[in-house]
Amino acid sequence: MKNAVNRDIPEYINGKKVKLFQGAFATQPDMHRQAPIVKCAKPGESKLMDSLEEVFRKIPIRNGMTLGFHHHFRNGDGVLNQVLEVASKMGIKDLTIAASAIFSVHAPLLQHIKDGVVTHIDTNYAVGPVAKAISQGLLKNPVIFRTHGGRARAIECGDLHIDVAFIAAPAADEYGNLNGIKGETACGSLGYAFPDAEYADVVVAVTDHIEPYPLAPIAISQERVDYVVKIDYIGDPEGIVSGTTKITKDPVQLKIASYAAKVIEASGVLKDGFSFQTGAGGASLAVAHYLSKIMKEKNIKGSFVMGGITEYLVKMYEEGLFKCIMDVQDFDLDAVRSLKENEGHLEVGAGLYASPYNSGCIVNKLDCAVLGATEIDKQFNVNVITGSDGVIMGGSGGHSDAAAGASLTIITTNLVRSRLAVLKDRVQTITTPGESIDVLVTESGVAVNTKREDLIDKFKNSGIPVMSIDEMAALAEQICGKAMAVDTEDRVVGVVEYRDGTVIDVIRKVKSN
Amino acid sequence: MKNAVNRDIPEYINGKKVKLFQGAFATQPDMHRQAPIVKCAKPGESKLMDSLEEVFRKIPIRNGMTLGFHHHFRNGDGVLNQVLEVASKMGIKDLTIAASAIFSVHAPLLQHIKDGVVTHIDTNYAVGPVAKAISQGLLKNPVIFRTHGGRARAIECGDLHIDVAFIAAPAADEYGNLNGIKGETACGSLGYAFPDAEYADVVVAVTDHIEPYPLAPIAISQERVDYVVKIDYIGDPEGIVSGTTKITKDPVQLKIASYAAKVIEASGVLKDGFSFQTGAGGASLAVAHYLSKIMKEKNIKGSFVMGGITEYLVKMYEEGLFKCIMDVQDFDLDAVRSLKENEGHLEVGAGLYASPYNSGCIVNKLDCAVLGATEIDKQFNVNVITGSDGVIMGGSGGHSDAAAGASLTIITTNLVRSRLAVLKDRVQTITTPGESIDVLVTESGVAVNTKREDLIDKFKNSGIPVMSIDEMAALAEQICGKAMAVDTEDRVVGVVEYRDGTVIDVIRKVKSN
Repeated sequence: MKNAVNRDIPEYINGKKVKLFQGAFATQPDMHRQAPIVKCAKPGESKLMDSLEEVFRKIPIRNGMTLGFHHHFRNGDGVLNQVLEVASKMGIKDLTIAASAIFSVHAPLLQHIKDGVVTHIDTNYAVGPVAKAISQGLLKNPVIFRTHGGRARAIECGDLHIDVAFIAAPAADEYGNLNGIKGETACGSLGYAFPDAEYADVVVAVTDHIEPYPLAPIAISQERVDYVVKIDYIGDPEGIVSGTTKITKDPVQLKIASYAAKVIEASGVLKDGFSFQTGAGGASLAVAHYLSKIMKEKNIKGSFVMGGITEYLVKMYEEGLFKCIMDVQDFDLDAVRSLKENEGHLEVGAGLYASPYNSGCIVNKLDCAVLGATEIDKQFNVNVITGSDGVIMGGSGGHSDAAAGASLTIITTNLVRSRLAVLKDRVQTITTPGESIDVLVTESGVAVNTKREDLIDKFKNSGIPVMSIDEMAALAEQICGKAMAVDTEDRVVGVVEYRDGTVIDVIRKVKSN
Repeated sequence: MKNAVNRDIPEYINGKKVKLFQGAFATQPDMHRQAPIVKCAKPGESKLMDSLEEVFRKIPIRNGMTLGFHHHFRNGDGVLNQVLEVASKMGIKDLTIAASAIFSVHAPLLQHIKDGVVTHIDTNYAVGPVAKAISQGLLKNPVIFRTHGGRARAIECGDLHIDVAFIAAPAADEYGNLNGIKGETACGSLGYAFPDAEYADVVVAVTDHIEPYPLAPIAISQERVDYVVKIDYIGDPEGIVSGTTKITKDPVQLKIASYAAKVIEASGVLKDGFSFQTGAGGASLAVAHYLSKIMKEKNIKGSFVMGGITEYLVKMYEEGLFKCIMDVQDFDLDAVRSLKENEGHLEVGAGLYASPYNSGCIVNKLDCAVLGATEIDKQFNVNVITGSDGVIMGGSGGHSDAAAGASLTIITTNLVRSRLAVLKDRVQTITTPGESIDVLVTESGVAVNTKREDLIDKFKNSGIPVMSIDEMAALAEQICGKAMAVDTEDRVVGVVEYRDGTVIDVIRKVKSN
């Protein structure tokens, strides 16, 4: 079956009938919220457990259950591995891992998959050895890839039922109030764990730091937390730092960033009340840096910034350029400090951040999102999930969410990367549909999506080197030659769900060499 | 049918089979959470409405719906009356009013009841002309009286379905983020509205103050708010002041308060980590005052205070006597100021505060609750809902919740009030079961519930004038004579639900004179 972005999708996946992607806002909800079982806790009952083993026995965790994890420690996470080690030791099989992201640190998952401890994975992002092994077909069942907003939606709407949520909590009290800003391993916002805490059948707080009752502030409350277990190590907050968080010095990237800033300025969105989301990489920060300069020159006061929060965004807030930081995840320790100290730095849950199915998420209020791409095609469809070799090395995360919500969505990327064209006729995997993208900015020029012809007029006389997407593609082909198709087998190893739960693409097994 | 406190309860009320009260923790939940319909809001859609009339048409509000209201403005509330005026003008009939409390200011309800606009009331507390008229049989269907925790439970567990929740919001942004601490009419915590916002089919924010997006902090978020309407008047924050909020100067009340403080000290709960809930009246504040002195003398650091928050409790917090204030409602403007300024002053929802059916509410963590009584009997059953004439003049509010949760629950009351005995053989209406009460403190002495004989030993040599409840009752009868039974008819005008949703008592129509 073909979906709205012309991808061939199997009719059934994992035994369930597939809902085809129909367009960014074409599929309306037709369900009620997930209704977890009602619990009761009497005065005097303790939630404290001695060990993860005790938690497993107490619940009890059984074969076939779905365990929830969140990724605020990113590549420093210490909880997922320890929980699965216990599962493995206790002989539990056939678990589904619903982890908001999977990093290199989660390499022990490989053995658990081989042993049958883990048989299904549901995630928003995967890099490292697990991602690679999935591409090579290690896991029998296709991985479900969601967006950050889509995961919140899936949990709230009952598509993803979590039996037991494990919440890595840098600070807890013995009755289950949690936050991420206190304790030795403070990692900042716990926003991605909010849906897990709200809707899982059982919620387990895993902490290395227990404070006297009551913990304040409360990010996740005792109302929803069933057990509290203190262990020695929940994660390394240094691991939250995502690659470089300094502004790039690469002249090509700086050129792209300056074009992007010009695009934003010329488009007319950069005025009082401006809101903005960008990534944490050096090129994204360069865009923020150029914007910062324009905002100061023109005395523009923005409303909010969002995205993985970094020192640079905090600086913009602290300089008074933005009224608020909306924070679902922190990407460095200065951001953690700011969440603790700054009144306008708000911790927000994944549903509030980006779920398409509630009374209005924050991405809907974005004036501008500046996002990256691994590949982009002439319809502006973006791939951020598979590399040029077809192997999984990322995921949407908030990409499709921000792109759908923002009034102006800009993709910034080198036109040519490692001698390969980023812009091609066909991207390997579609993560974000072209209809959500307004402008593509590369070192060679700027291409505007035809649905936004209004922008071309605005870009005249602004020094922005506008060219058509076809011209740009021709240029890329001229430099790199015709792109080679990736060699894949028929077998589907990953399903790319759009934020509304429809299938926008599938990932097929790469041919073994 | 007789329930566990020996009250005669009809088998069916409002056409539904009654669940009998079986004991404070005897009835376990056997349901799933209420599952509201899933919504969707696209970027660019506005939530702003021009008027309440437009909101009514847009939803649309129809005959027979249930409308939710919260009582943070107490006797200063301006929203309920205006909403019902619109309903009346539009010819809507048969509404259920699910208001967390009803005050004298809501007198226009009388006409709406007579006109058939309102045919059912569901509340936690009622005083003034509406309460009186209910007692006299004005409303055809019995009013459901709940506790504050019980209302949150009923909403979360699906016993109380709210079609449209109206949230009086002192500050809002145009996308529905709300708080109670900004704006000209700041009333503080919006905690009682949290369950309404989470579970109502449609949520309408009614505000007199719209700030640029995004409002910070966020008490109730845009995720759940469907419409925002700005009107001229939402309420008078002076109306939140509940009677006197100064410490009593009455020597009898001071005597009772000093006995209560001695009881708390002698019972052994007054040590580091001490947690405490009391009311806002002058006598309750006197207890807080005596405790404050002891805590300072002994250098005791408490964990949290709770209850209607007043200047006096804020002072205790600001003097460092307590680590946190858990705030579901503010009773004066200094409390509002503190919620805005103090890091340890936390806004909590009604479910987190007191629902018996979640993973653990805050009342479960109370070391001590000091509560009042209109009447109390020799089994320590307490009435705070009907007066000596059988007429409704209150309600449980958080009474039964705090009593059930606290390790030490003390009732403070004059033994004789207006020449009538407060302690009698039979209370007119049971609000809180005697099993939840540990000690009765009056000006004549202190009686200990037999289930807490352990306390009698502790009270020896402490200067506490302990007597048996029978001795105290005899003393009361000696002073006041035998209590006269209230003359009621058979007709049930009110159902008193215990916090778990079982029926602990009913209120019958008073005989017209």
